[in-house]
Amino acid sequence: MTTREKAELGKLAAEASLGLGGAIKDRALEAMAEALRAGSAAVFAANEADLAESAGLAAPLLKRLLFDEAKLQSAVDGIESLRALPDPVGRVLSARLLDDGLALRQVSCPIGLVAMVFESRPDALVQMAALAAKSGNAVILKGGREAARTNSALAGIIYAAGLAAGLPERWLSTLETREEVAELLALDELVDLIVPRGSKEFVARIKAESRIPVLGHADGICHLYLHEDAEPAMAAALAVDSKAQYPAACNAAEVLLVHSAFAPRGLAAVAAALEGAGVRLDLCPRSAGILGLPGPAGAPGRSLKADGDWSVEYLDLRMAVKVVDSLDEAIAHINRYGSGHTDAIVAASRAAAGRFMDRVDSASVYWNASTRFADGYRYGLGAELGISTGKLHARGPVGLEGLCTYKWKLEGSGQVVADYASGARKFKHEDLGDGA
Amino acid sequence: MTTREKAELGKLAAEASLGLGGAIKDRALEAMAEALRAGSAAVFAANEADLAESAGLAAPLLKRLLFDEAKLQSAVDGIESLRALPDPVGRVLSARLLDDGLALRQVSCPIGLVAMVFESRPDALVQMAALAAKSGNAVILKGGREAARTNSALAGIIYAAGLAAGLPERWLSTLETREEVAELLALDELVDLIVPRGSKEFVARIKAESRIPVLGHADGICHLYLHEDAEPAMAAALAVDSKAQYPAACNAAEVLLVHSAFAPRGLAAVAAALEGAGVRLDLCPRSAGILGLPGPAGAPGRSLKADGDWSVEYLDLRMAVKVVDSLDEAIAHINRYGSGHTDAIVAASRAAAGRFMDRVDSASVYWNASTRFADGYRYGLGAELGISTGKLHARGPVGLEGLCTYKWKLEGSGQVVADYASGARKFKHEDLGDGA
Repeated sequence: MTTREKAELGKLAAEASLGLGGAIKDRALEAMAEALRAGSAAVFAANEADLAESAGLAAPLLKRLLFDEAKLQSAVDGIESLRALPDPVGRVLSARLLDDGLALRQVSCPIGLVAMVFESRPDALVQMAALAAKSGNAVILKGGREAARTNSALAGIIYAAGLAAGLPERWLSTLETREEVAELLALDELVDLIVPRGSKEFVARIKAESRIPVLGHADGICHLYLHEDAEPAMAAALAVDSKAQYPAACNAAEVLLVHSAFAPRGLAAVAAALEGAGVRLDLCPRSAGILGLPGPAGAPGRSLKADGDWSVEYLDLRMAVKVVDSLDEAIAHINRYGSGHTDAIVAASRAAAGRFMDRVDSASVYWNASTRFADGYRYGLGAELGISTGKLHARGPVGLEGLCTYKWKLEGSGQVVADYASGARKFKHEDLGDGA
Repeated sequence: MTTREKAELGKLAAEASLGLGGAIKDRALEAMAEALRAGSAAVFAANEADLAESAGLAAPLLKRLLFDEAKLQSAVDGIESLRALPDPVGRVLSARLLDDGLALRQVSCPIGLVAMVFESRPDALVQMAALAAKSGNAVILKGGREAARTNSALAGIIYAAGLAAGLPERWLSTLETREEVAELLALDELVDLIVPRGSKEFVARIKAESRIPVLGHADGICHLYLHEDAEPAMAAALAVDSKAQYPAACNAAEVLLVHSAFAPRGLAAVAAALEGAGVRLDLCPRSAGILGLPGPAGAPGRSLKADGDWSVEYLDLRMAVKVVDSLDEAIAHINRYGSGHTDAIVAASRAAAGRFMDRVDSASVYWNASTRFADGYRYGLGAELGISTGKLHARGPVGLEGLCTYKWKLEGSGQVVADYASGARKFKHEDLGDGA
């Protein structure tokens, strides 16, 4: 079957899914979880074959590729927690009586056909298929080549289980090759949304190659700004957590901005805490002047950051440090060099924090909290589709609502616009309240 | 100034606008309305010069180009009603206590820099500038060439009034030439959204030429479906209103779908009503068989629609008619040939209407109401930015909220993720309710 045929059938499946009730979708999720348990031997065998072929890969990649009993359990747990969430479809977002017997409701509904393209991890396939099923979208999945056998085994089990439980034919399809992905990216009249998961180069390439809207983020250039009245111990603790708690995450801070009135009294303690956590510092000339180079013996080391490139994403135990002279200079720096992901201020002043949170043009803006909180589970969304740095549709950590749109349902009793145009009737526009 | 420089300054203005309170924005709207009144002589003179140069244009185009006392009054009224609306920025969309002293709020905010590109009508410039000011977005406007002098006079007055009232420098810029628009369409790293207003060819061209998200609709291929149990008098009244109340509108119905069990008993009456309103009918073979050709003397005429192209948008007193054998055939037809704008069912059965409204994949789906209700004012949105047939961000008639996004504001007291990762602390995830 060609990629276009898969997309055309996916679009029909999406239309058929528009009428699915929550009970069928939840039964499908239950069936998927059961089928994964029942079919685990075949999945593990496929995964062993994938691992054998990839034996030369680096250990972290192999760890991501591995799909064992623990990964299965976590995938099944994920499906079950998704099942426990309320149906994201059919929520009444607003309701208004336009006139007697003429009621308008704005109601959430699935988007349609969603493509989810990701690098290697086979557990992502299970999670994404389950998100699609819960939200009533049809999905086309493409996983990493290294995991081809595992993905194929997982997709086959999940598709059949969903189909048997009442999801429509072709609610899930898979692509195998890069060429098929390239074909899919051109089908903007059939595919409503792409959700890529992978390295920033991977996401950037998909954004560049397609006209289909992309939900995701390419860069996570996050900042922690220490205001003049920051409390040094809190500043140090938040710097260490934001940078070093999991440096490879997109919400790890990459740049520390320090107010020039804070630096003389607090920067040394913050730097010592960061270096104590193994962080190497790239210093602007002013911070280098305050801290000194090359830093204490035994520390990870300091160096002068002279290149002026502040759009850095180390994803490693390394952090850039820059002294600024004002709150507004920090805000301007973040808006210029940041990626609109997550940025935090450490400050005692509520006014300064408010100005920072209003004016920093990022998806998540924090006052006295670690940038690492930017995460769908930590936000309490129940499930995470991804983190979006785009400003339209969904922004920041995105749960199931990122796979939903809405439509306007108007129920009348024969009303015509001519009566309102002539003045024979007037609109009432009475708010019926949410959920009406 | 180059187009890129205008966009770069617009982006800075957008950042400066992020902190604007509702009072300043409303004062700016008030100042604009006053300045338009005070400067009306210059606008009328500019408009006379535009009209003189366009003397050869057709009467409807000249009418759109005209900016006289009545258009001024209506523009000022529009600004004042916009001013009366609540601030769309700063609304708390959700609020959740993640843990003691760690509160997350999802808060509406402006999108940033919006480009609004429209054909001739100068009154659209006033409306769009006012929408941008109320929502705190910076805006780049490009109006039709024929109205260049009028647009320039209006934009000059509005910009100066907004600036004096506290909007940031360059909150509004204008483009003059098609070449500048082409340059703007390429600046997807600076411009967050394009709102085009004009013919469907105009909107389609902008969509095709830019990677910037577009909020609008190219086609309005709307359907009215008469179910088997439709009441003939209601069917006739809704057909006439949907088609003939204002045939050039995007929400006018273009195709009448008729259930084969309704046609023998009701189609003749519906056709007579349509023809009585001056509508020419393009009939499928089955409807032609029922109604007969060429139709009664003195009527606008009937013809056989043999080309099979059901994606027709007449925008005129002309309507296609097709007999279908089931509700599901009607739904499939609409999803295949429609444009996702507005589609209506006339039916007695709530079950049939519910299935139609669930499964028709359009922005607005109606039961026993005219398609002509699809309009921001009729929906009670207070202001209309446009009608979107896209599924992401905003769908259907869009008010001020189409110019807003949201950000996540987290206020803590020094919390770090490490404490939650280690299990030392647990998330509470208590809903604080909207507006908290």
